[in-house]
Amino acid sequence: MRSTLALLGSLLAAATAMPMDALTDPFVALAARSNHSSQYPSSLDALRGGKTSCATSNGKSAASFNPPLYTEAHRPQFHFSPTDNFMNDPNGLVYSQGLWHLFYQYNPTQLVAGNQHWGHAVSTDLYHWQNLPIAIAPEREGDGIFSGSAVLDVNNTSGLFEDSTPADSRFVAVYTLNTPTEQTQHLAYSSDGIHFTKLNQTLLTINSTQFRDPKVFWDEGQSQWVMTVAHPQEYAVTFYSSPNLKDWQELSRFRMTGLPGYQYECPDLVQIPIESGPDAGKRRWVLVNSINPGSPMGGSIVQYYIGDWDGRTFTADDAAFRYADFGKDYYAFQSWSNSPDGKAYGVAWASNWQYTQVVPTSPFRSFQSTPRELTLKYYRPNPMYGEYVLSSKPAMLDNIRAKTLYKLDADKHHQHAARANHTVALRGDGGFEIDATFVLPNDVNATYNTIGSFEILSSSGKQSITAGIQMGEPTVAFIDRSNAGRRWARTNPFFTDKSSGIVRYQSEYAPDQYILGPLPPSATAAEAAAAKEAGQQTISLKVLVDRSVLEAFANDGQLSGTSVFFFDNDEKPATVRVSIGDDKLRLGSLVVRQLKSTWPTCP
Amino acid sequence: MRSTLALLGSLLAAATAMPMDALTDPFVALAARSNHSSQYPSSLDALRGGKTSCATSNGKSAASFNPPLYTEAHRPQFHFSPTDNFMNDPNGLVYSQGLWHLFYQYNPTQLVAGNQHWGHAVSTDLYHWQNLPIAIAPEREGDGIFSGSAVLDVNNTSGLFEDSTPADSRFVAVYTLNTPTEQTQHLAYSSDGIHFTKLNQTLLTINSTQFRDPKVFWDEGQSQWVMTVAHPQEYAVTFYSSPNLKDWQELSRFRMTGLPGYQYECPDLVQIPIESGPDAGKRRWVLVNSINPGSPMGGSIVQYYIGDWDGRTFTADDAAFRYADFGKDYYAFQSWSNSPDGKAYGVAWASNWQYTQVVPTSPFRSFQSTPRELTLKYYRPNPMYGEYVLSSKPAMLDNIRAKTLYKLDADKHHQHAARANHTVALRGDGGFEIDATFVLPNDVNATYNTIGSFEILSSSGKQSITAGIQMGEPTVAFIDRSNAGRRWARTNPFFTDKSSGIVRYQSEYAPDQYILGPLPPSATAAEAAAAKEAGQQTISLKVLVDRSVLEAFANDGQLSGTSVFFFDNDEKPATVRVSIGDDKLRLGSLVVRQLKSTWPTCP
Repeated sequence: MRSTLALLGSLLAAATAMPMDALTDPFVALAARSNHSSQYPSSLDALRGGKTSCATSNGKSAASFNPPLYTEAHRPQFHFSPTDNFMNDPNGLVYSQGLWHLFYQYNPTQLVAGNQHWGHAVSTDLYHWQNLPIAIAPEREGDGIFSGSAVLDVNNTSGLFEDSTPADSRFVAVYTLNTPTEQTQHLAYSSDGIHFTKLNQTLLTINSTQFRDPKVFWDEGQSQWVMTVAHPQEYAVTFYSSPNLKDWQELSRFRMTGLPGYQYECPDLVQIPIESGPDAGKRRWVLVNSINPGSPMGGSIVQYYIGDWDGRTFTADDAAFRYADFGKDYYAFQSWSNSPDGKAYGVAWASNWQYTQVVPTSPFRSFQSTPRELTLKYYRPNPMYGEYVLSSKPAMLDNIRAKTLYKLDADKHHQHAARANHTVALRGDGGFEIDATFVLPNDVNATYNTIGSFEILSSSGKQSITAGIQMGEPTVAFIDRSNAGRRWARTNPFFTDKSSGIVRYQSEYAPDQYILGPLPPSATAAEAAAAKEAGQQTISLKVLVDRSVLEAFANDGQLSGTSVFFFDNDEKPATVRVSIGDDKLRLGSLVVRQLKSTWPTCP
Repeated sequence: MRSTLALLGSLLAAATAMPMDALTDPFVALAARSNHSSQYPSSLDALRGGKTSCATSNGKSAASFNPPLYTEAHRPQFHFSPTDNFMNDPNGLVYSQGLWHLFYQYNPTQLVAGNQHWGHAVSTDLYHWQNLPIAIAPEREGDGIFSGSAVLDVNNTSGLFEDSTPADSRFVAVYTLNTPTEQTQHLAYSSDGIHFTKLNQTLLTINSTQFRDPKVFWDEGQSQWVMTVAHPQEYAVTFYSSPNLKDWQELSRFRMTGLPGYQYECPDLVQIPIESGPDAGKRRWVLVNSINPGSPMGGSIVQYYIGDWDGRTFTADDAAFRYADFGKDYYAFQSWSNSPDGKAYGVAWASNWQYTQVVPTSPFRSFQSTPRELTLKYYRPNPMYGEYVLSSKPAMLDNIRAKTLYKLDADKHHQHAARANHTVALRGDGGFEIDATFVLPNDVNATYNTIGSFEILSSSGKQSITAGIQMGEPTVAFIDRSNAGRRWARTNPFFTDKSSGIVRYQSEYAPDQYILGPLPPSATAAEAAAAKEAGQQTISLKVLVDRSVLEAFANDGQLSGTSVFFFDNDEKPATVRVSIGDDKLRLGSLVVRQLKSTWPTCP
């Protein structure tokens, strides 16, 4: 943000302890020092086995942390965070040779935004992250390396690579350089995926301070590179094309659609597979767009448009505002380039600009959401209307699933268990996955409101965060963090306590699933008979709980919500209480699993 | 809502005590009984002097209430509420012969939604309301008289009136009849403005259960009556025309723009005067549209589109989602027909469907917002972009202003007072109006975050609701009800505690006002000099406080927020603490006024 320029200025005056001779070129020196630190692997080859080390985000020694790194009460155990200091937007997401790359907006020297560098980490499984040296650093005091993306220039269109460099090692990062007088687009390249060299050439300048967040992809249909980039304060997403990643021509602009807010940021045009619906198996273009501030919830929010891309122009299917997450803490979504399996993956920054710089965590601030698998699914927002919605579920969760702590299969158990409340101890030092199906008989009045919920209690039992669903027309999912640590929350007029979103009707394109609510007009006689025979409405709810963050997913990702929370007194999630609101609602199933802690023991 | 059908069914089974012989036709009997009750005036003429009585909303005796009517701790003193039972959408808003008419969705027999009738009240000044008999009642058990509008058929296009009936007494109400099998549009007319006769003819039917909320206006440009009505679950606002209010032809549909949510409701196409900007003095068409549920805040929300009406079609200027209120409690906005002074007035229901039926008030539930004067003003949402925004400020507040309790004019007072906090006792049995200007020097870093706030404390001082602004880029206004009565709030997962919205930059079209924040690119040299000389940024904040509801207005209505709140232990607003976050921010002015209680003493 433009405002960070001034913030940067004031913060530089209070720069952390650094050798005097580095002050003339502090950030490059920092990057160089970390680059050559022996704590980092010398090549990515060493990492393809999946083992991670205690290398830090900015070259500090892991041994210098007290409490020991990753043991802090507020430190998420399966969400990425920098070892210390401040992170925001994910950047440069690209998959190459068995490794998922996560770069990110990083202030290596302060616990607040500013001083932007590209931090860097890699993972074989999207959960166990290995820190690498700072990838891109500003050259001059007062500059920032802002957000951007990365691609693999497999055919060396840029001419920047040797023939000997493997195709999948031809990393090109495209990013915004932010200076006090303008924002311009730049490129840095790497043949080892660790050390980046800046191209001594500006890719794009429009003499503006508001021009940023380039996301580049290879447009197969037109054999061209395409960049989506924001003109934030003009509410435009601008498309450029290039044959070689260096010379760019403007194609078109997508303007003022959906929520304007204060400005547009972090556009991303990506093809998403259709999981269900009339076009299941195909893919559609989705333009994602982040707004900050201006969310009706307050602060930052991600929206998206489904439409068509013809090589020059993006045309949205309609003029609707659709947003990605019903919580407050999901921003700057970016999709992974070069996904290995045809699926669409992405991640978002799990925070909100309204309060991110003051949340009570240390020595780090912020973490990313779980990595998500994105699909389009056909749903009915109400009984009369069907459309595709962007569905977001945790990606590859098997990579961190551990022991099952509790399992209820209502078909096998006594009816009583299906109608009872259940309390499960959350044993383990990682996180937890709670899955339930809630079942309401079809003969219950459509307006009948009853709640099924997961209350995650802290160690003392006195604090809690709750996620649940309220059955009705329509069903609503909610997250309530009003009892999850009041000490800090009460000081901040923007740390909203409750959020909720609508769970949609299953559509006729999921005939094997129970039809929720009244049958749509298009239901076949067979579907009507099946629903009648099934005699019930079912909704699934998955909640992932980590220290400081909860993510809720209804109907396998059709609706998702992300909320941070900060228990007082260093307490952690310790128990889940699954409650059934009354004797009409029952559990169809309930499973509680451990999720592994993904951090090594450090030092 | 369709869901209310079933709710109605279950509630009828538990109908309140009524004479057995009335049960076959209970609602018409209720209306008839109240119509003939001696507590109501026999004609509107008796009311044009402005005096109001203790007549109740449903024919009950005012003497039967304990505690006495309007003295309840949660009873707003200058917002309209029914004497008892449940109200929602405002209906039939029309001005005639010195009287503002407010009809409303009313359940005369229960404290929850259902059993919909049109309640009725009139006022000479928009604040002192006189209850009248129920205007329109359903004929059959299980039916509801849903929302709609009213016009004056001054030229008797309908042929329903005698020549002798004064033009401004030719009341025609158009409303939705809701039955278990369909929603259809109907008409009722009145020549005395109190007693309505239903036309024995359906105006419009499309064989649907989802077709409602007709808002009719006289389209001068085409010499036609136009109706806006919703196809809620198809996300369409449909336009019909008629020469005579009885025979309607479809013109066009406005579809899927802005927030879809679950469904569209309560459309309203209205001309709004332009208060500032390149077209100041002209008017533009604004289509208002309510969504429930589906607000990102949760539940219900009002959105609007600025555009053009050519007699057949409404074309929005763009595809943006713009919403009317940054709080959770503003829904089903309707504009007043036949405004007497060329200005645009309207009111919204100050509640949210997520929790309205369970709020801890009795013997009534819900109230309307303050009546609002609507204009369009030209603002900059950020320094680079200018556009019109719907501005909403309290209408005709002079009608209820009383004593000034406190006044600080910083030019006259010692500098210290402008930088101090101020505590003012809120003496009086009505409500309160607090106005402040907050001033920040222009040389302060644009990211400097400091808060100016009004904390409204309860009688004991232990509870409070706070409204304020956080200076910055951009400035944000907020309402925080997290300390305003936790007993009920903690039981409801949808009663969100905090909301906020962006305060926009003053534009170059308000050159006499201080330019807030960085100068826009189009600022003239004179404006730049004036800002430099003024050396400061100013923002105005007005807060209206009543029992149970707070409304905040920044920059004279450019941004408005409405939030209900419910102090525990029957406490009421007793003190306001005006706080200045630090020594850079100061008050330019501060005025605290009493607003009269608008209810009579009853009995």
